[in-house]
Amino acid sequence: MSLLIVGSLALDIIETPFATRELALGGSATFISLAASYFSPERLGIVGVVGDDFPERAWELFRTHAIDTSGIEVVSGGKTFSWHGRYHYDMNTRDTIETNLNVFADFKPRVPKHFKTPDFLVLGNIQPDLQREVIEQLGRRPRLVLLDTMNFWITGNRESLERTLKLSNALVVNDSEARLLIEHPSLIVAGRKLQEMLAESSPRIVVIKKGEHGALLFYDDHIFSAPAYPLEDIFDPTGAGDTFMGGFIGYLAKRGSTSYEDAKRAVIYGTVLASYACSKFSTEGIEDLSMEQIVERFRSLRTLSAFDLEEEMLIE
Amino acid sequence: MSLLIVGSLALDIIETPFATRELALGGSATFISLAASYFSPERLGIVGVVGDDFPERAWELFRTHAIDTSGIEVVSGGKTFSWHGRYHYDMNTRDTIETNLNVFADFKPRVPKHFKTPDFLVLGNIQPDLQREVIEQLGRRPRLVLLDTMNFWITGNRESLERTLKLSNALVVNDSEARLLIEHPSLIVAGRKLQEMLAESSPRIVVIKKGEHGALLFYDDHIFSAPAYPLEDIFDPTGAGDTFMGGFIGYLAKRGSTSYEDAKRAVIYGTVLASYACSKFSTEGIEDLSMEQIVERFRSLRTLSAFDLEEEMLIE
Repeated sequence: MSLLIVGSLALDIIETPFATRELALGGSATFISLAASYFSPERLGIVGVVGDDFPERAWELFRTHAIDTSGIEVVSGGKTFSWHGRYHYDMNTRDTIETNLNVFADFKPRVPKHFKTPDFLVLGNIQPDLQREVIEQLGRRPRLVLLDTMNFWITGNRESLERTLKLSNALVVNDSEARLLIEHPSLIVAGRKLQEMLAESSPRIVVIKKGEHGALLFYDDHIFSAPAYPLEDIFDPTGAGDTFMGGFIGYLAKRGSTSYEDAKRAVIYGTVLASYACSKFSTEGIEDLSMEQIVERFRSLRTLSAFDLEEEMLIE
Repeated sequence: MSLLIVGSLALDIIETPFATRELALGGSATFISLAASYFSPERLGIVGVVGDDFPERAWELFRTHAIDTSGIEVVSGGKTFSWHGRYHYDMNTRDTIETNLNVFADFKPRVPKHFKTPDFLVLGNIQPDLQREVIEQLGRRPRLVLLDTMNFWITGNRESLERTLKLSNALVVNDSEARLLIEHPSLIVAGRKLQEMLAESSPRIVVIKKGEHGALLFYDDHIFSAPAYPLEDIFDPTGAGDTFMGGFIGYLAKRGSTSYEDAKRAVIYGTVLASYACSKFSTEGIEDLSMEQIVERFRSLRTLSAFDLEEEMLIE
């Protein structure tokens, strides 16, 4: 089925305790689309904006991954959005040194004609008003609208965000964002309450990402607890959350399904892709994977978390 | 098989945002032994110390649970150890208001003659020199020595603790203790390095408890990621870690096994018992459970975390 992704494209400056990289390819739409591409949805496109400094190697990467870039506006003489971040020693926390919106400051998403009826839609982390403008441009309601957001919009544009949530079927947030949206110490309660903020139709899907602690999937009345992939070293966590989302939605788009069993697998595939993303700088960890590598880690995660009652108890 | 538990017995003052309780039955040996009792190990005993203020209802509780109390020294005219704690709103963090060691200050563990050859031994969170003194009193090496410790001993008695670790086969710590023992941001690396601190024989078992994020089991070269039981409300987390340990070792003692498959199940049984402990004050949540209630939550945890590749992939 077709999958449309709206989000940022960026050239970042990334500092980790181990190395620094300038002009690192980044942005939510970049990571989401690359991750999703491994599941070869029927059609996969991006809506976003870049300056004419956006490098040829990035366009080439999108071509290789069969990602339709006709919805990416190129602003002549403009500079691409850039985030400058510095990771702390533990790699779990980071400081934003600088954010240069550049061409992203005046971004008005325009969905190309041939993408007006996507089956699956991802609204990456942009201003919630803009997220709604995308939905309004569509010719029909997608089977699934998956939303991302961040602390900045939660505290600064709460009302608008709530309106966008009411038009969405699925939300992916990390644990601190969940606790900011729902002021309750229990993530279980937070997940339940977040579901109630979504469109009033089944499925209502909330994923709370917990970094090294895995993820929780809330699907209607079900809860699924997914393990994290046990990485000993994290090289660059930038884009891991977006990569997770891309693996999640890419798998569902390939399956043409929004069932609970497929949503559970989608969480695992998202976890796998995110683990590869963390193992190299920028997008390098997810530029050239094989399906065998992906399935191998899926199986590892299953082995890591499988258990059952002893045989005597099962016979009872 | 037989199971001996060495640890504290206490009468605590517990303050939560919802209620306060004085003279609450507590202490590591109390929670560990009650939790373990559900698996009816062949013989189950405590070594510890109390004052003659230790209430009849506690002795009665131990009797009901077939816990051998002949190793509990009663100091005439002495007062039982008491911890006064106050939980914050999120129930994940707490302050110690006061600790009165009382009779625990001069505690010298004395293993009764009929418990000198336990199959399984739990060394609850006491001074590491005392933990070693218990091992030295035994007539033979137990099949498994399970160790608990805390920040206080990690920072203040590091060398002694390391010597006790070398005599142990299994360690249960929480994530902050693991990070204090092994200064590395990755819990995976910490778990591996903690295994190396244990006795040089198989199995080497480390469990890192992560509260609402579940637990990680390191067993020789294996890693098992266990989910947390999804509690919406936590009433009193006091003793949850000890209860986890009791469920873990109780199950292994009943099985007479230290296999990896049984250790995985033991982590799940520990999780189940701990979830019941959190749902009421003090020991009340684990005073009167049925095996049906325990197995029911075991099954829930399995449902919560089970997933697999789609059928087509399994056939391939």
